[in-house]
Amino acid sequence: MIEIIVIGTGNLGYHLCKAIENQKDALLNVDNSAFAKADNNNVKNTLKLVGYYNLSAREIPEFKAPLLYSIDELPKADLIIIATPDDFIKEVSDSIKNDAVVVHTSGSVAMDAVSRHKNHGVFYIPQSFSKSRAMVFDHLPICIEFNNTVTQHVLEDLGNTLSRKLTHLNSQQRGRLHIAAVYMNNFVNHCYTKADEILQESQIDASLLYPLMNETLAKAQDLSPLAAQTGPARRNDEQTIARHLNSLKTNDRAMYDAITQSIKNTYGN
Amino acid sequence: MIEIIVIGTGNLGYHLCKAIENQKDALLNVDNSAFAKADNNNVKNTLKLVGYYNLSAREIPEFKAPLLYSIDELPKADLIIIATPDDFIKEVSDSIKNDAVVVHTSGSVAMDAVSRHKNHGVFYIPQSFSKSRAMVFDHLPICIEFNNTVTQHVLEDLGNTLSRKLTHLNSQQRGRLHIAAVYMNNFVNHCYTKADEILQESQIDASLLYPLMNETLAKAQDLSPLAAQTGPARRNDEQTIARHLNSLKTNDRAMYDAITQSIKNTYGN
Repeated sequence: MIEIIVIGTGNLGYHLCKAIENQKDALLNVDNSAFAKADNNNVKNTLKLVGYYNLSAREIPEFKAPLLYSIDELPKADLIIIATPDDFIKEVSDSIKNDAVVVHTSGSVAMDAVSRHKNHGVFYIPQSFSKSRAMVFDHLPICIEFNNTVTQHVLEDLGNTLSRKLTHLNSQQRGRLHIAAVYMNNFVNHCYTKADEILQESQIDASLLYPLMNETLAKAQDLSPLAAQTGPARRNDEQTIARHLNSLKTNDRAMYDAITQSIKNTYGN
Repeated sequence: MIEIIVIGTGNLGYHLCKAIENQKDALLNVDNSAFAKADNNNVKNTLKLVGYYNLSAREIPEFKAPLLYSIDELPKADLIIIATPDDFIKEVSDSIKNDAVVVHTSGSVAMDAVSRHKNHGVFYIPQSFSKSRAMVFDHLPICIEFNNTVTQHVLEDLGNTLSRKLTHLNSQQRGRLHIAAVYMNNFVNHCYTKADEILQESQIDASLLYPLMNETLAKAQDLSPLAAQTGPARRNDEQTIARHLNSLKTNDRAMYDAITQSIKNTYGN
């Protein structure tokens, strides 16, 4: 059994607490064939949420574990997961007196932010969590880093219990993965937003482009996005590009132009 | 019965020919409940591909209809669909002597490119077609424009036979939809490409970010992309932005910076 404390109950902390408390249900829901194939040595662990802490001292009714009131005096646990915003990680880590393995969950903060602890590491999940959306951990990639084998075993046990996609990444790789995730999530989503805005201004139903959205993703995963690229920038269609730029709001031209240039550079146009 | 000729057998023309020839199979595959709900007046039409034309005079073995060898002397048909690249539409339209309804299929060309014909219009499908990927037309949005009721009826009959999502859009709206599609497909795909490139450089498996890719799309459709935005630009995290910019290749900074600025502008940061 791994006894766990989660510090921070934002989107990620909330889902981690839920996943830890619902672990048995989650394992029962896995279909049998996948279950049989998995490494059963690893899924025998049971997880226990000892408690959770948040700055607002706000109790979360759906958790069985108690709200904790002080970082300085945490109960005994095997693992403490810091799931606060990046800027608080070091400060929180430094206040923990507990003798547990201490890890943070950030994509962009190096492991040494928690290095005050003898056993420390990182437990990073490159996913976008929202409290309002259920999340199945089973196929989520979990990227771990550790300073020694004690930490390694705890994180591997936890990771393999929650998911079937555990990977080792060092701080430098995790930093690169985080930048890639900014493109894949933040930038992609903002392109969706701009498309929506244009449709709304012309009273066109946004769902008209859902099949294109879905196919764009499916094609990128199927062919590779490099091979799937089409459009005016890809075929160097200056006339269409100029017409588009001209019809955009002044504020929107810089982004259209920069992405167009980057596509041209990529394909040597 | 609507007798149809398709000019151009690129990605779109190819799939149109296939959809027209396989129309009966497609209708049989529709599940019964959806079928029962649909307007059955419209799905009674049968479609016939009279022939297809392409510049390279290349026969396509999977079509039952014959390859045609001259635009000047096309056989009799109810509808001629021009599915060539944008730059050829007017020229092709002007060579057609046939007394049929003539339409083009472009998102960014106005209807008057085919206005030489008494009955003319546009049959635009905002989707990214590839010959190597099967395409189910049933849920694809089809956007039509027409100069008179003769054209309207032919296009509505065809559109409703192939799909359940027919919309009327004028040339101006179609132009806006096409720009939105550039963001939704071309720009999104290029963000995927940049993410892939960063992962490859660090020997990280690209599929690690597939769950994030999928969730980004699902969340945008579920919540709206405007509400779903997260990340350093959204929360004005200058430190992370500066670190990212610094670690990018010189060529990649302009695009990162322009999207970041656009996110900041959108949320008033």
